[in-house]
Amino acid sequence: MLVKTVRQFASKPTALRNVAVVLSGCGVYDGSEIHEASACLVHLSRHSASVHVFAPDIAQKHVINHLTGEIMPETRNVLVESARIARGGQNISSLDKLNVNQFQAIILPGGFGAAKNLSTFAFDGDQMVVDNRLTDILKDFHRSRKPIGMCCISPVIAAKLIPGVQVTLGKMKNLKENEAKDVFPYSGAVLSARLMGAETQECDVNEICVDESHQVVTTPAFMKNASFHEIFDGVGLMIEKVIQMIGHK
Amino acid sequence: MLVKTVRQFASKPTALRNVAVVLSGCGVYDGSEIHEASACLVHLSRHSASVHVFAPDIAQKHVINHLTGEIMPETRNVLVESARIARGGQNISSLDKLNVNQFQAIILPGGFGAAKNLSTFAFDGDQMVVDNRLTDILKDFHRSRKPIGMCCISPVIAAKLIPGVQVTLGKMKNLKENEAKDVFPYSGAVLSARLMGAETQECDVNEICVDESHQVVTTPAFMKNASFHEIFDGVGLMIEKVIQMIGHK
Repeated sequence: MLVKTVRQFASKPTALRNVAVVLSGCGVYDGSEIHEASACLVHLSRHSASVHVFAPDIAQKHVINHLTGEIMPETRNVLVESARIARGGQNISSLDKLNVNQFQAIILPGGFGAAKNLSTFAFDGDQMVVDNRLTDILKDFHRSRKPIGMCCISPVIAAKLIPGVQVTLGKMKNLKENEAKDVFPYSGAVLSARLMGAETQECDVNEICVDESHQVVTTPAFMKNASFHEIFDGVGLMIEKVIQMIGHK
Repeated sequence: MLVKTVRQFASKPTALRNVAVVLSGCGVYDGSEIHEASACLVHLSRHSASVHVFAPDIAQKHVINHLTGEIMPETRNVLVESARIARGGQNISSLDKLNVNQFQAIILPGGFGAAKNLSTFAFDGDQMVVDNRLTDILKDFHRSRKPIGMCCISPVIAAKLIPGVQVTLGKMKNLKENEAKDVFPYSGAVLSARLMGAETQECDVNEICVDESHQVVTTPAFMKNASFHEIFDGVGLMIEKVIQMIGHK
């Protein structure tokens, strides 16, 4: 019997890096994208951040059967389902309880929950509205010049709330037709973000878009049909940059 | 605006590394532990494995409200909920359809689903029974000397099915009382595995137990109250060893 070990460089969580992570359910088609959310938590933990998770205490817009893609005739609560990713009630609170003064940064993973439960982007496109409480919170982070990290479809929320923000939602320029459909299937979101007043940056899954003036960091994640480790690494770059920005305060 | 990039070393998935991942739902208290499952998929993808996910098409033993810890008066299907982690029906099939000949290795992440839906360990301890189909599959992998990777509580399933197997379920020896309760809260599983005939190895979260003779690789993962990145790295060691074992065929 062999035992192998790995060395780990992170130190203990520190109150100097209090980071709020906002979830929107549990599952890509009606909640938070699970692997993006997990990658955020892994990279935050490696950077010794002290994390608390939040989610709105509201009903999901709907429940999608992730095996068939069909709507299920039931209701689920966004906070309760997000607690699956947070691993229990001690690690998660209702979004109502998020006190901006207690955090140095905020992270929004993607998944359709960001476009269905945190905003109405999936239904209303550039005419979307953002959850009221989340609107106040993100505007407070922005006003306080505290970094905001987002991935996948979540940057549409920054596009709506922060006039002129620079974000990425993946690529749409210079793609062959099959790439637009198969590789970046949701690239229409780029146009919507522009219609809402954002400046969009073409990024691949292994790139981040850094808006220094608004302190917003974004990465495409599953806006691209990419592999799990590519998503993980791209999210890692986004988290690393957010942690760096905290360090500069 | 800055764009940063990361380089990624994985090549395209290869049929020489077809790996089956068996899930048991979606959420630590009634299904697969989400972060362990995600870490398995990230590390497998980085090692260029071609992965297909499976889960039994059965009702969950129960549904736990992960916010309160209470049982919810509803039913959910293990395959349907596992599809949340698999990101849709194209990536997951009923466990009935797993053909051992098509895979070089099999991975079972942890979470209470392994002890409630894949087996009855959470209710019956060392008197547990394992899902019939999973029993046949794991015995086939074992007979074919194809590697089996497990983490967290899943190794109790190997303990039940493979007489004399060496596994880890974390630590219980030489722990102070508060460590046993707070750091390794489920260490009673070690005794149960021994009662079922396994040889147990004390491992920390950053270690793996390798049973070369049975081709079984295990790591404690969330058997320890550890950080997300520690879980991720420990699971990574387990996956790396399983990939190595495939390579030796």
